[in-house]
Amino acid sequence: MKWHFDDFIYGSIDGAVTTFAIVAGVMGASLPSTIILILGFANLFADGFSMAAANYQASKARNEFIEMKRRQEEWEIDNLEEQEREEIREIYREKGFKDELLEDVVRIITSKRKVWIDTMMKEELGLIEDEKNPLDSSVSTFVGFNLVGLIPLIPFMVFMIIGIELNSEAFGYSIVSVAAAFFLVGMIKGKIVKKSILHSGINTLIIGGVAAIVAYFVGYGLNFLVS
Amino acid sequence: MKWHFDDFIYGSIDGAVTTFAIVAGVMGASLPSTIILILGFANLFADGFSMAAANYQASKARNEFIEMKRRQEEWEIDNLEEQEREEIREIYREKGFKDELLEDVVRIITSKRKVWIDTMMKEELGLIEDEKNPLDSSVSTFVGFNLVGLIPLIPFMVFMIIGIELNSEAFGYSIVSVAAAFFLVGMIKGKIVKKSILHSGINTLIIGGVAAIVAYFVGYGLNFLVS
Repeated sequence: MKWHFDDFIYGSIDGAVTTFAIVAGVMGASLPSTIILILGFANLFADGFSMAAANYQASKARNEFIEMKRRQEEWEIDNLEEQEREEIREIYREKGFKDELLEDVVRIITSKRKVWIDTMMKEELGLIEDEKNPLDSSVSTFVGFNLVGLIPLIPFMVFMIIGIELNSEAFGYSIVSVAAAFFLVGMIKGKIVKKSILHSGINTLIIGGVAAIVAYFVGYGLNFLVS
Repeated sequence: MKWHFDDFIYGSIDGAVTTFAIVAGVMGASLPSTIILILGFANLFADGFSMAAANYQASKARNEFIEMKRRQEEWEIDNLEEQEREEIREIYREKGFKDELLEDVVRIITSKRKVWIDTMMKEELGLIEDEKNPLDSSVSTFVGFNLVGLIPLIPFMVFMIIGIELNSEAFGYSIVSVAAAFFLVGMIKGKIVKKSILHSGINTLIIGGVAAIVAYFVGYGLNFLVS
């Protein structure tokens, strides 16, 4: 399987925010940490699965869209040959070719059906068949969601294991953990795209932090309404 | 703003599944429909916002990755000129060019820095700078999430407006609605990618349906554990 870091980032941020939202929501109701853990893990599994399934459908839609465009180009080459040849001429004129050399290039490109279609796809439509397997995309999302989404739950797990029932304290650690998780995801992103690791970490921390604060107020405010 | 149908599909399926999961979860606890609606709308807003924020970060990461690769290619052209010229030669040899014509093509392509780099990006790396604005992506996700995610809540809203408190009946309609929503999203997808609308509708219904069933059992089973 091929790893997709953008899907991983997508899943990991959403996983951390939604798990944190559940922790925040349940905190307001002063329930024992067992409940927080059950609800948290349920969200990790159910929401992670849902997101992976949605990702699968969206990635498949994107691939099918590209396939459809290829079939369209194939049809055009078969039925509007002269017009499509003129488009190749235009593309290479733009690149700086002219006169006889331009005609030679057009002749070679249009002499192989696959080369001709590939050129139209890339140059006219800006589409490249990335062999992005929808399953790889959705697995990357799911793993990111569960791995990073687990982080806000860790303090509650640790407190439960060592036998302390101090939810408000665990919640404090949970806030710190989720902030650290965003920073870490941002740093990984910065490392991959070779930008400033610090800058990228802070950036993701801010975006994720705002989302977590929104989720917190919705979760907490909700409890207020319900109880 | 530009509409991104793949992000819309992503958001809409996840929105429908997670809202349905909440409806299913709350149903088990036999709470009044007000609670289902409050929790449902809170999820729409908070989870939709979270997903949009995560999408923003992931789209930005993808764009930054492409930019990074472009800077790399620029460096290579400046520092490893002969090697990069040979790569262009190889790319056009593959397309069927040879001898003098091949040398002419290489000369023209490598005479303009932008054309040279664009060719390396597209042909060597398979990367195209799609002008996919991260904000457009995340708005498409958010709208899809909220629009389609609203559907499982509609029966409860209607029942509340007409003043009937029959949650189990509303839940039945909710199941039918969410199934209809998946089918509809699938049909839209089929229409866009010009595939069989019926086939595409059934396909999304199955994937979304499985995700919703998983979410249902987690939500329902959870209630059993908690209460």
